[in-house]
Amino acid sequence: MAPQDHHFLTVKSLGIDTYRENIIFMRQDCEVCRSEGFTSLTRVEVHHDDKHIVATLNVIVSDMLHHSEASLSMEAMKRLNVKDGDVIHVSHLKPIDSLKKVRAKMYGNSLDEFSFQEIIKDVAEGHYSNVELAAFITACVGKRLSVQEITSLTKAMVSTGEKLEWGSEKIFDKHCVGGIPGNRTTPIIVSIVAAAGLIIPKTSSRAITSPSGTADTMETMTRVDLSLEQIRKVVEKEGGCIAWGGAVQLSPADDILISVERSLDVDSEGQMIASILSKKTSAGSTDIIIDIPVGPTAKVRSVKNAKSLQQTFALVGEAMNLNVKSLQTDGKQPVGKGVGPSLEATDVLRVLQNTKDAPSDLAAHAILLSGKLLEMAGQCLAGEGIPEAKRILESGKAYQKFLAICEAQGGFSQPKKANFTRDILCYRAGKIAAIDNRTLARIAKLAGAPKASTAGIFFHAELEKKVDLGEPLLTIHAESQGELNYAFQYATSASPFIEIL
Amino acid sequence: MAPQDHHFLTVKSLGIDTYRENIIFMRQDCEVCRSEGFTSLTRVEVHHDDKHIVATLNVIVSDMLHHSEASLSMEAMKRLNVKDGDVIHVSHLKPIDSLKKVRAKMYGNSLDEFSFQEIIKDVAEGHYSNVELAAFITACVGKRLSVQEITSLTKAMVSTGEKLEWGSEKIFDKHCVGGIPGNRTTPIIVSIVAAAGLIIPKTSSRAITSPSGTADTMETMTRVDLSLEQIRKVVEKEGGCIAWGGAVQLSPADDILISVERSLDVDSEGQMIASILSKKTSAGSTDIIIDIPVGPTAKVRSVKNAKSLQQTFALVGEAMNLNVKSLQTDGKQPVGKGVGPSLEATDVLRVLQNTKDAPSDLAAHAILLSGKLLEMAGQCLAGEGIPEAKRILESGKAYQKFLAICEAQGGFSQPKKANFTRDILCYRAGKIAAIDNRTLARIAKLAGAPKASTAGIFFHAELEKKVDLGEPLLTIHAESQGELNYAFQYATSASPFIEIL
Repeated sequence: MAPQDHHFLTVKSLGIDTYRENIIFMRQDCEVCRSEGFTSLTRVEVHHDDKHIVATLNVIVSDMLHHSEASLSMEAMKRLNVKDGDVIHVSHLKPIDSLKKVRAKMYGNSLDEFSFQEIIKDVAEGHYSNVELAAFITACVGKRLSVQEITSLTKAMVSTGEKLEWGSEKIFDKHCVGGIPGNRTTPIIVSIVAAAGLIIPKTSSRAITSPSGTADTMETMTRVDLSLEQIRKVVEKEGGCIAWGGAVQLSPADDILISVERSLDVDSEGQMIASILSKKTSAGSTDIIIDIPVGPTAKVRSVKNAKSLQQTFALVGEAMNLNVKSLQTDGKQPVGKGVGPSLEATDVLRVLQNTKDAPSDLAAHAILLSGKLLEMAGQCLAGEGIPEAKRILESGKAYQKFLAICEAQGGFSQPKKANFTRDILCYRAGKIAAIDNRTLARIAKLAGAPKASTAGIFFHAELEKKVDLGEPLLTIHAESQGELNYAFQYATSASPFIEIL
Repeated sequence: MAPQDHHFLTVKSLGIDTYRENIIFMRQDCEVCRSEGFTSLTRVEVHHDDKHIVATLNVIVSDMLHHSEASLSMEAMKRLNVKDGDVIHVSHLKPIDSLKKVRAKMYGNSLDEFSFQEIIKDVAEGHYSNVELAAFITACVGKRLSVQEITSLTKAMVSTGEKLEWGSEKIFDKHCVGGIPGNRTTPIIVSIVAAAGLIIPKTSSRAITSPSGTADTMETMTRVDLSLEQIRKVVEKEGGCIAWGGAVQLSPADDILISVERSLDVDSEGQMIASILSKKTSAGSTDIIIDIPVGPTAKVRSVKNAKSLQQTFALVGEAMNLNVKSLQTDGKQPVGKGVGPSLEATDVLRVLQNTKDAPSDLAAHAILLSGKLLEMAGQCLAGEGIPEAKRILESGKAYQKFLAICEAQGGFSQPKKANFTRDILCYRAGKIAAIDNRTLARIAKLAGAPKASTAGIFFHAELEKKVDLGEPLLTIHAESQGELNYAFQYATSASPFIEIL
């Protein structure tokens, strides 16, 4: 159907931020809604020049817009590249074919590689509503994707994103499946192995459901929103980088899926593997170590589940032509003392500086994974990686490398401190017997982490430690009194999340 | 945490209709967002007097709102019972416990009755976002609910809704699982069996994914948004009614779930059974006949699937203490000639009036189901129901009963006709060999049905009919030129949906 005159509307920006979802606002009684039969939640196509987006309609029944005007959510304006006063054309949405595949998956059917390509392309282009994304995520959650489907999903994510290529034969990478508050080994590992001469162009995510991601933590010390070109320069100069993956669109569909996963507070195994391995592939990595913390309140709760995950990682890795090794590590308690962007950065700096108050568990964890990478690189014999990594860290070379990487990324600055803090005190004397990581993470999030970068928890009560009545178990940090109160109230009203015997 | 002064905001209505989902609009730089750390898509609690709702935040970065103002979507204003100038209090959302159960179901775990009660109560109270509803629907789609879970879901839906009670021992009802365009037997069946003395307080839905529901069709001839008290009066006077179920909140959670199912374009078997049997239970029905059309493009595509559905209906019915019988019927082509609210109403009237151009397939289908109900009531011996129903229809008593019911519901009026029509012509001579119901339904929907009540399709090409080149196969009816064009374009560009051999 050819565009008709009355289908054109003038953009009026109302400054409404609906995050990733494209929303168009139109008067219920405007010519377009009336002639086309559009009502609230109708999905429509919006055209400007040679671009178009798919958007969900919210109708307006007030005089906020004139009859000839329409408004778009801020992300939609950016995607369509329009500003106030530009003219757009609104039309019926042609059926999105890939949604048929999503429905098939909802009903438990397997999808082939072509289907995933179609779906992921439409997701990356912003053609799905959040409701449709939630359905796709749920249809793929748990064990609902086969190894072959995860491989197809991974390939689809790679093919929609940008790519990095390197002259070198072996490019290293590491990843942690997460779930352990404060487990911020990446900056230390990259510094150790880059100091040893390995090439490790590390891109990290922001927090999904946790109080901080590596990118959030690094951002308190240096720039992380590097372009592909900037990443290339940093890595060529220093052998490694610690950048935010979201800035470089290595897997744009994944970033959109993650925003909906976050609001559902779920992590899907298949999508997690596809997300990780697609980004590693796009970053040009060939040899990858995966850290899988296991513990009763970690993301992976049993050795059995960890084994199954390791197996799937290895199978999909093989299909993607990657050398993927994984390690089960101790996930029974937080690693380090800080939970939240700045607080974790402080831990990282103490380890790199070999200070007396450096958290030894974080140092040991980083050395373990670095050692494994050094062995994979053939720089040490099996079993010699750990002592070699320890030597590099203790020599100060890793710290120098870290500062050099920060310098190359845009300059180093000290992490800041929160203005509001409050202790949670020990309710009885005894020995710390168990810790609920999930409740800890929730307290840090209620305190404002990761968006409030100095917010979070400083943790004083590691397993086996003897504590006295009234001694601080943890200190909540927040940037506003409201958030501090809210986190404190939750921490003191939740059933005891630190068990003392 | 006690409400603090700076958490109060004044409501300014912007007239934004987001359909069922509660959205709150607040300035990014207002005191509340800043002190509480709220950002776009944060879920918050909004309080006014002793009421509260859960809403999703969209932040505003323009001067559309003052610092002390907030706006709510129209449905949210209604739910919270606020108007322009009222003062609301916004706070952090306490974790919604039932969402843990939804996540468990997403991962394939079974839920007990208590879990469904919790979930459905929160859904009915509007505490779930559309994204969370989509996840719940997807987690329950296909065969993912056991008979026990469907029963629990049914009971949960009953317990959140209003209820009708009747003095009589046996209360009859019928339901069609749908999928066949134009299959509008309900008004005819209610008229026949009420004329025979049965009590049948029929509530019907509006269209979910189809071009018309019985409530949409009836609304072109009489009022359907009756209160429980009005339904009781109509049924006490005439023995039957044909009302819209959505007006009486027999299952408020179901209505909310259906709005998201519609936007996903899926029907979930378990939720469908729970939806149907909860509404029947709430309406006080005891004896129910379920019509299951079977055909390659019907909702139920094979005899095997129909049998499985019949079995689940019987088992859940038994657990709910209902006498549920079901029938497989022919779902290979549309029933009647009209598809769309007014066009189907015209068919219904022709059958009731026994006119010469009445669609005989629709009459036969209604007689079959009415006969079964008469047998279930013990008014006829087995096998004598059909001739008895036919006698009642042909005698004109059913038509008199229909007019009396309409009169009792608020008066009868003739269905209207659309202003724009266009024929789809036969592309070759031959015999009609197959019909794609789904494409037919889509054309009717693109023409504007069900919201445009006179829009839809008039169908001329039943199976086995001999047709000539250029003869009309169907006529599209629409209320706007845009919709007519759009439906016509789709009908002529889609691959042939009426096969001619």
